Amino acid sequence: MSTQRFDLAVIGSGPAGQKGAIAAAKLGKKVAVIDTRAMLGGVTLHGGTLPSKTLREAILYLTGLRQRAFYGREYRLKEDITVADLRARVQTVVEREVAVVADQLVRNGVALVRGAARFRDAHTLEITGPTDETLIEARFVLIACGTRPARSAEIPCDGKKIFVADQLGQVDELPRRLLVVGAGVVGLEYASMMAALGIEVTLIEQRPTILDFVDQEIIEALAFHLRRLGMVFRLGETVARVAVDGQGVVVAELESGKKVHGDALLYTVGRQANSDTLNLAAAGLTADARGRIQVDECYRTTVPHISAAGDVIGFPALASTSMEQGRIASCKMFDGPAGQSCAPLPYGIYTIPEISMVGKTERELTQAKVPYEVGLSKYEELAKGQMVGDSTGMLKILFHPETRKVLGVHAIGEGATEIIHIGQAVMALDGKLEYFRDTVFNYPTFAEAYKVAALDGLNKL
Amino acid sequence: MSTQRFDLAVIGSGPAGQKGAIAAAKLGKKVAVIDTRAMLGGVTLHGGTLPSKTLREAILYLTGLRQRAFYGREYRLKEDITVADLRARVQTVVEREVAVVADQLVRNGVALVRGAARFRDAHTLEITGPTDETLIEARFVLIACGTRPARSAEIPCDGKKIFVADQLGQVDELPRRLLVVGAGVVGLEYASMMAALGIEVTLIEQRPTILDFVDQEIIEALAFHLRRLGMVFRLGETVARVAVDGQGVVVAELESGKKVHGDALLYTVGRQANSDTLNLAAAGLTADARGRIQVDECYRTTVPHISAAGDVIGFPALASTSMEQGRIASCKMFDGPAGQSCAPLPYGIYTIPEISMVGKTERELTQAKVPYEVGLSKYEELAKGQMVGDSTGMLKILFHPETRKVLGVHAIGEGATEIIHIGQAVMALDGKLEYFRDTVFNYPTFAEAYKVAALDGLNKL
Repeated sequence: MSTQRFDLAVIGSGPAGQKGAIAAAKLGKKVAVIDTRAMLGGVTLHGGTLPSKTLREAILYLTGLRQRAFYGREYRLKEDITVADLRARVQTVVEREVAVVADQLVRNGVALVRGAARFRDAHTLEITGPTDETLIEARFVLIACGTRPARSAEIPCDGKKIFVADQLGQVDELPRRLLVVGAGVVGLEYASMMAALGIEVTLIEQRPTILDFVDQEIIEALAFHLRRLGMVFRLGETVARVAVDGQGVVVAELESGKKVHGDALLYTVGRQANSDTLNLAAAGLTADARGRIQVDECYRTTVPHISAAGDVIGFPALASTSMEQGRIASCKMFDGPAGQSCAPLPYGIYTIPEISMVGKTERELTQAKVPYEVGLSKYEELAKGQMVGDSTGMLKILFHPETRKVLGVHAIGEGATEIIHIGQAVMALDGKLEYFRDTVFNYPTFAEAYKVAALDGLNKL
Repeated sequence: MSTQRFDLAVIGSGPAGQKGAIAAAKLGKKVAVIDTRAMLGGVTLHGGTLPSKTLREAILYLTGLRQRAFYGREYRLKEDITVADLRARVQTVVEREVAVVADQLVRNGVALVRGAARFRDAHTLEITGPTDETLIEARFVLIACGTRPARSAEIPCDGKKIFVADQLGQVDELPRRLLVVGAGVVGLEYASMMAALGIEVTLIEQRPTILDFVDQEIIEALAFHLRRLGMVFRLGETVARVAVDGQGVVVAELESGKKVHGDALLYTVGRQANSDTLNLAAAGLTADARGRIQVDECYRTTVPHISAAGDVIGFPALASTSMEQGRIASCKMFDGPAGQSCAPLPYGIYTIPEISMVGKTERELTQAKVPYEVGLSKYEELAKGQMVGDSTGMLKILFHPETRKVLGVHAIGEGATEIIHIGQAVMALDGKLEYFRDTVFNYPTFAEAYKVAALDGLNKL
């Protein structure tokens, strides 16, 4: 068996793996990225973030949803939207992005190794490729193997009527009625897209509330909007069993005794890390029941030369944070300039409408006994909001009434994931609420919401 | 003749007038806004910024321009786009925004006076209303009367075949070939919209270059994109005369001897301030040939209790800056907390694709002998750029190679006018280039361009 030697072996080519590999390569290190798939990109490119966000754009366009303020609530650009309509666009984007990723890696001199990686010892990986087996010896290892959807014994996935998110790309026909089990970020993103397509969606969630880490007012606006799209919420309900009846109808029995029906069921409760295939024990590593690996603030595992980043280390499991984790992990390994970020982490949730936040929520501030005041701006009061017909959108700024320090920014509506970064910069660089009042914003933009919200907040003092 | 007394009389209800009136009202002052139109909002709402930007959204949607990356260059959502299609949406938005403006003024206790204002003396205005004449006495006056398109003796506007931008709303039919004279912001915005509609546009401009205050690379990207839409540039050419021939074709003779033909001609060279109707002399004021009034840094004219703001004081004549000028003018009058803005002014140009900038250009830095380095990010390398099919877009950061201070940000492409405010905040709050490298951005967003550009810039050092 041939052996190749590297400074760094990266297991997985998703956002964490890519950025980790590139950061090390830029420091002059010899790097290999190992992935089982023929195509690079991890779950972000295949079945995860990118396809789902591209799907979302395609749905927003094809349904004409954004245009209904002008052409009426019944407006619809394309009457019969098929899976093929949606798939075509997703495929184009994924192919282009794979090419960009591969090009970036190759340009930086990173070796791409196809195959399944398995630890032989703490410095050696056995790679089972499509045709042969090889060994990789590495001074450092970055585990960025990602996750897959968790399965449940009660819910027999067949990939046709009952499926997990990664199987969505294989569905041949859009259901008329869809049951979504699990109202986490993934569940809500898909549920809102399907509702936008005109599918009757029933959302079932064990907890009595959704997205507890998000601002309550934003969640209420989301729920209001989703109900207007016809979505039915079944919160505080547990699925006891699921079956497909003789007519091909999916029947979910809830523990409360209710039965709910659909043409298909999407199961989105939890994710399982792919670390179970890596033979962690040979490297002296362990993982928890969900396959997650524990790391320190430098993303080092208990074995100092092995780091882990991305979904495999758990919350928040967003592509954006995974990239940063991968980059920092490599910089810490090779004493590169990682840079200490002063900016609070942003969260982007690509429901319809989209949500984004940075900093603290009202609930967190109350629990921490930090006094705060709220400045609010509704999109419908902004020229841009009216131009695009967004009547749900809003931006709220939480700030300290004495110091006027910005404590958190919460947004829902078009452009929310973009404009949140304005508030993030002001928070990171210690600007005060008055910054937004005194700054000129382009007209018409959604960014103007900051100014309107700041004036609203200052008026309350 | 009845006389009403106010602390502040505001002439004009555009962005400067509105914000000036509201700022004074919030300080407890008795305020009147005087406008000749039955509907509030100034040229921004009627014939200006808002209709043109709404028209732009309608055109982007109806042409399917953003979708051509996915459905091919010949893709077109609606085959025969009529004036009625476009007008419907603009009308809806303008009506809503007028209602928002009126509501804001009324909620703040501002009196709305319909009529033409004329100075009797420095504290008294004669108002000629639709049915009667009244007098307004005011301690302070804010002139925010705005501008109208300038006319030219060589170009006989008939409002049908040959028109200025404010008359565009009256056009009954879209021309097949359009001549646009003047490649300033207004000319380029309309020219690019018309080109997006599939109209053959010829753009004629006296100067050899366009938008000299904008970054050269961004202008080149714009010109490249517009040429791809079929636009013909005639730069360094002066129009000698314009006539409509027997077949109803508009013929423009250029001083170089060329003749160019179109079905219609849009004249967008310069604006004339409406101050000529105010009898400025009675208040002891003067204006220049274009009707512009000079003010100091507090927006005071040479008569200390009379201020002026908005388009009437000249460059930059953007709705965004006018709002801020009106607000500051009132705060300075009544010793309110104006707040000194530390943020550089943003510029938003709503061409297709849109352009935005903040801070210095390469040309300005070179002239000022400030060394700089460039960090560039192309939208097509971003996941979001690929998702929406934007292949022209880019963001560039100019920064000082030693201090890493951000000197300017220049962007072209979807969302440019929104995300520019991230760079603006970092510049205002004295962040360095490393801020963008070390900050987590939502994925996928255009905002990520900052991170990519920062990494590119840092690699060059």
